[in-house]
Amino acid sequence: MARVFGKFSKILIGGAAFTVTASGFYAGIDCFGPIHHAFATSTNSKDFPICHSTPWDYNWDKRQLFNADTTPSSLDKPKATRHIILVRHGQYHYFDEDSKCHLTNLGRNQLDLTGRRLKQLNFPYSRIVYSTMTRAVESTDEIIKHLPGVPTVPCDLIREGAPFPPEPAVQNWPPEGPKAYEEDGPRIEAAFEKYIHRADPSQTEDSYEVFVCHANVIRYFVCRALQLPPEAWIRVSLDNGSLTWLTIRPSGTVSLRWLGNSGYMPPDKISLN
Amino acid sequence: MARVFGKFSKILIGGAAFTVTASGFYAGIDCFGPIHHAFATSTNSKDFPICHSTPWDYNWDKRQLFNADTTPSSLDKPKATRHIILVRHGQYHYFDEDSKCHLTNLGRNQLDLTGRRLKQLNFPYSRIVYSTMTRAVESTDEIIKHLPGVPTVPCDLIREGAPFPPEPAVQNWPPEGPKAYEEDGPRIEAAFEKYIHRADPSQTEDSYEVFVCHANVIRYFVCRALQLPPEAWIRVSLDNGSLTWLTIRPSGTVSLRWLGNSGYMPPDKISLN
Repeated sequence: MARVFGKFSKILIGGAAFTVTASGFYAGIDCFGPIHHAFATSTNSKDFPICHSTPWDYNWDKRQLFNADTTPSSLDKPKATRHIILVRHGQYHYFDEDSKCHLTNLGRNQLDLTGRRLKQLNFPYSRIVYSTMTRAVESTDEIIKHLPGVPTVPCDLIREGAPFPPEPAVQNWPPEGPKAYEEDGPRIEAAFEKYIHRADPSQTEDSYEVFVCHANVIRYFVCRALQLPPEAWIRVSLDNGSLTWLTIRPSGTVSLRWLGNSGYMPPDKISLN
Repeated sequence: MARVFGKFSKILIGGAAFTVTASGFYAGIDCFGPIHHAFATSTNSKDFPICHSTPWDYNWDKRQLFNADTTPSSLDKPKATRHIILVRHGQYHYFDEDSKCHLTNLGRNQLDLTGRRLKQLNFPYSRIVYSTMTRAVESTDEIIKHLPGVPTVPCDLIREGAPFPPEPAVQNWPPEGPKAYEEDGPRIEAAFEKYIHRADPSQTEDSYEVFVCHANVIRYFVCRALQLPPEAWIRVSLDNGSLTWLTIRPSGTVSLRWLGNSGYMPPDKISLN
């Protein structure tokens, strides 16, 4: 990594430790005040600031092995990596009643392209879990045409909903009012706990699972899996039919490989709603 | 939005306000304790918990207009949306010395595909800003073959570096030790402040700008633009040549449309390093 920035290389950052604000701001951002300040004043301190980053919680899925009196054998340790591929359903006709919410022709076309792409990627898919809402069922129908033989599993937990109060707030949303969070939040969180975790120690090979569901569910899963503030889900948009890929390693670290990857669609097939 | 989850609809979340932890955890996550708790105990409270989400800072780019004694005229208000398309350079031969870090044949092929995709997307690109590191310059050469006439601007600020101490930490990285953050952090933050902000009031049309740069720079920009903890940049991976798209609205809200979008590449052309 080259270091050729004479202009910046002498700008040192104040070395004092920063206190956590009482307002609930996550502490990492506390560092930016001093960084901005450093541009204006530059100090002589050579210490890097002790930024109060939030530590990664390796036990986020309650599957971390701790060294106890009885050290677990290597047989008990997760060995495999789980790849979670989250697919957003296609464009659909909106109605209050879910049974009427069929995919548009474009929506079917989008998911046909997504199915082709999944086939082309040629991962050893172990299952397709799909939301039981009409638009997700119909999206799954398009995908499985290209992945015959992959088991499909319907699931109510990953139906669309209001996972968490978004920030910034969205005017007139959710239409049902704050009660929507009471109903949907615990259910979508339960889906997260059920599906998004490191591999079981009995899993010997890396796995690839497809989940066909909804924008809010996917965005919430991404925030939670990356240990980001859950209210931030609203700051992401997902194209219809797009692929979002989370990798969960045996150690409990998580990586987002793709988010809203729709590049296999011609531009005139891309839609957001 | 259907509400058919009888099993969950009666699970109510404790109504107490939660206190901010002293450990520096961002407070949104504080809600999960009570959510988990609610599954086990379910209370009679019908109040949604007051989650201590971090408010969106509308003045993050110091361009928010406030109602002062002299209310600004409509001429002073931003009207346009800025679309920022961040391109990661292609695969390259690694050497300590940047001038030797040429793209591989695959890397050139990747950026040729990226250039074709940008052309196909057919946005009215106003400029291509590119990092002055060899692999980014060569990546830009491939792109501009498909976008002749779009002005190109070299920039030292968006060269690769160590933007912020990652969490979880990466063993033996950065190779130069913590001093790398002192040099690169303020420079990459300065790049963020220079390029990532809402439109100027004088801008009348939505704009599309391409930035050809590096994984750490792009990941840091995304965290900062979405007001996420900057240390989280390490939790994202970006394919070589992939497209990451940020939309900045006149109000100061920001949306991530794509992250690591490489779907226009055949699977055998996809690489991470």
